[in-house]
Amino acid sequence: MNAQASGTKALVFDVFGTVVDWHGSVAREMRELAKARGLRLNAAKFAKAWRAGYRPAMDRVRSGEAPFEKIDAIHRAILEEVLRKFKIATLTEEEKAHLNLVWHRLKPWPDSPRGLKRLKSKFIIATLSNGNTGLLVDMAKHGGLPWDCIFSSDTFKHFKPDPEMYLGAADMLSLKPEEVMMVASHKADLRAAAQCGLKTAFVKRPHEYGRNNNPDLASEAEFTLNAESFLDLAEQLGC
Amino acid sequence: MNAQASGTKALVFDVFGTVVDWHGSVAREMRELAKARGLRLNAAKFAKAWRAGYRPAMDRVRSGEAPFEKIDAIHRAILEEVLRKFKIATLTEEEKAHLNLVWHRLKPWPDSPRGLKRLKSKFIIATLSNGNTGLLVDMAKHGGLPWDCIFSSDTFKHFKPDPEMYLGAADMLSLKPEEVMMVASHKADLRAAAQCGLKTAFVKRPHEYGRNNNPDLASEAEFTLNAESFLDLAEQLGC
Repeated sequence: MNAQASGTKALVFDVFGTVVDWHGSVAREMRELAKARGLRLNAAKFAKAWRAGYRPAMDRVRSGEAPFEKIDAIHRAILEEVLRKFKIATLTEEEKAHLNLVWHRLKPWPDSPRGLKRLKSKFIIATLSNGNTGLLVDMAKHGGLPWDCIFSSDTFKHFKPDPEMYLGAADMLSLKPEEVMMVASHKADLRAAAQCGLKTAFVKRPHEYGRNNNPDLASEAEFTLNAESFLDLAEQLGC
Repeated sequence: MNAQASGTKALVFDVFGTVVDWHGSVAREMRELAKARGLRLNAAKFAKAWRAGYRPAMDRVRSGEAPFEKIDAIHRAILEEVLRKFKIATLTEEEKAHLNLVWHRLKPWPDSPRGLKRLKSKFIIATLSNGNTGLLVDMAKHGGLPWDCIFSSDTFKHFKPDPEMYLGAADMLSLKPEEVMMVASHKADLRAAAQCGLKTAFVKRPHEYGRNNNPDLASEAEFTLNAESFLDLAEQLGC
């Protein structure tokens, strides 16, 4: 095992983008819906617009401007806005309720289930996601993600990057912050975890926003580990 | 599937006694420790005395007399009392800390891992235990218990039979209380769950307190299901 990682007992994972492909999954369901209902729309843009509403909505909760809500409710409110923006007015309530649960059906990246299984042989593996518990449980059953434990925004009634999330996960596992490693494809999430004393692993997900994007994939010396995939992470951690 | 159970989406499980054999596991470790350290003691009585301190300690928290604490801390405080009562004064701090973690190493009943795996194929399966999250995660890894999700007293900062535990689990799964079934070998736990609107399954564990006891194993019409084991429960639920 990489020397800097020694002492790690649990790995906690960002989920949307790091473990599952939200962009591809949402765009695929939107394309199918558009075909079935005869709608004209750019499914990839629709997926990005839906996701883009997420951070500002969470920030309103984090600043105290809005009360805590589950991501399911936040996703639904953003969906209504995005449907208006895309001038789609013909979906029934039932279709909208089903569509909103697409976030429960997001597909894992190809290396996620196998990588997690290897990592689980040596470490506690848990989600540490802004998703809600019900969503994360559904997604795990749907995608074969073998979590030991689900930590979510509704466990702590906070959203990342609030320190209550990172420190809360360590406390609930009765571990010291430095015994927990945050795994994410987003550098801001890792930096917030490091501020709380957690170890960090940056996992590169070049297609999080689809094929024709240019995300920041540079390794950083400030992170405990930098990995190309969950299989590479398992290798580096001696699993 | 049994008609009364229809509509069930998640099963939440009491753990100590229902899923794992606390009495046999604690007595076994105490016998080994006694042998290694040349102590004279009745290991079965020691296990029962340790467990007997648990309910009064939780009730002090439930009544507001004491602040919320993890079961790990409660177990440790009771251990000190029981060691005094049994006149064992020679254990080192390290030995006591290791011994206290016996509750993380409790062995499943023989049918538990296989029964849970079958039940998981059709339902969300989660703990709903007064244990703490770290304890339940360690126990699951140690005993091969394939939980979808861990709900514990430190998730809700309450102990059963507080309604916050039963209703909290349903809420975190975004389910109605009647879509959740409480599974336990203790009738009081099931009655408290039923008061909150949950369905109930009584599972008989004749040896929870060892071989020479006479627990109340009578089926009750008030429970949704009565089962001889987790395999019988899986059968009744069509898994």
